[in-house]
Amino acid sequence: MSKISSREEMELLDTFGIGAPNDAFAQYFIGQSFLKPLTVFGKCPVFLANVTFEPGCRNNWHIHHATKDGGQLLICTTGEGWYQEEGKDAVSLTPGTVITIPANVKHWHGAKKDSWFSHIAVEVPGENTSAEWCEPVSDTLYEALC
Amino acid sequence: MSKISSREEMELLDTFGIGAPNDAFAQYFIGQSFLKPLTVFGKCPVFLANVTFEPGCRNNWHIHHATKDGGQLLICTTGEGWYQEEGKDAVSLTPGTVITIPANVKHWHGAKKDSWFSHIAVEVPGENTSAEWCEPVSDTLYEALC
Repeated sequence: MSKISSREEMELLDTFGIGAPNDAFAQYFIGQSFLKPLTVFGKCPVFLANVTFEPGCRNNWHIHHATKDGGQLLICTTGEGWYQEEGKDAVSLTPGTVITIPANVKHWHGAKKDSWFSHIAVEVPGENTSAEWCEPVSDTLYEALC
Repeated sequence: MSKISSREEMELLDTFGIGAPNDAFAQYFIGQSFLKPLTVFGKCPVFLANVTFEPGCRNNWHIHHATKDGGQLLICTTGEGWYQEEGKDAVSLTPGTVITIPANVKHWHGAKKDSWFSHIAVEVPGENTSAEWCEPVSDTLYEALC
């Protein structure tokens, strides 16, 4: 059990840092998320960021498009969350879980409803990469997870 | 203080897993290291592995060559270690430290002498990539770090 109920505990345990409110992407999230870049954007060919979700927070269904390579890796470090690909069961995320998100696969990720959650997101370089943001994860789907 | 003195404590705290003795690279290390791949080699364009060093263990000076991009990222998760680029002071590594190792820069990394240490290594894709392994980190240099 790695669930974390308070922001204070999360700030203590997540050594990569919570960073700032993720305002640029807030329109694609339900709930509050935070973003802390871990590499200098544009300086390193692979971009890393620590993404933190408050309990209940998740991003919308989305797709990392690429014509070659691309996609994203999630390195789960603190708290507990969910990852789900369209048409598959949700996967429970706990510290130590690493998820390889292939390019061109519709998916979402976020916190569990009763825990803060952080993962380091690794942007996998590719050709003609773009993100397509789709509909929110419905309360019906999300609340049924346990 | 994040130092870890015993293998038992390390196995408890390093949620990414210690994996197997890093025999393939043992010739380029002083002391015992361990390797646990976190992505499927060849399946994902970015290769991730958890590398664990026993106290005193470090790799030789080495260079990640590339004609474009390349290099490596170190995501420090557990215990304490060192990273040093040639001609610069060693940098203390603790949980939450992220190091961007540029291509074509001579460097080494490893544990502190009194702590186990783990980092996730992220291989940054590039063109014409290769690793050049050089001389060991001398006891004189290493023992002077504190």
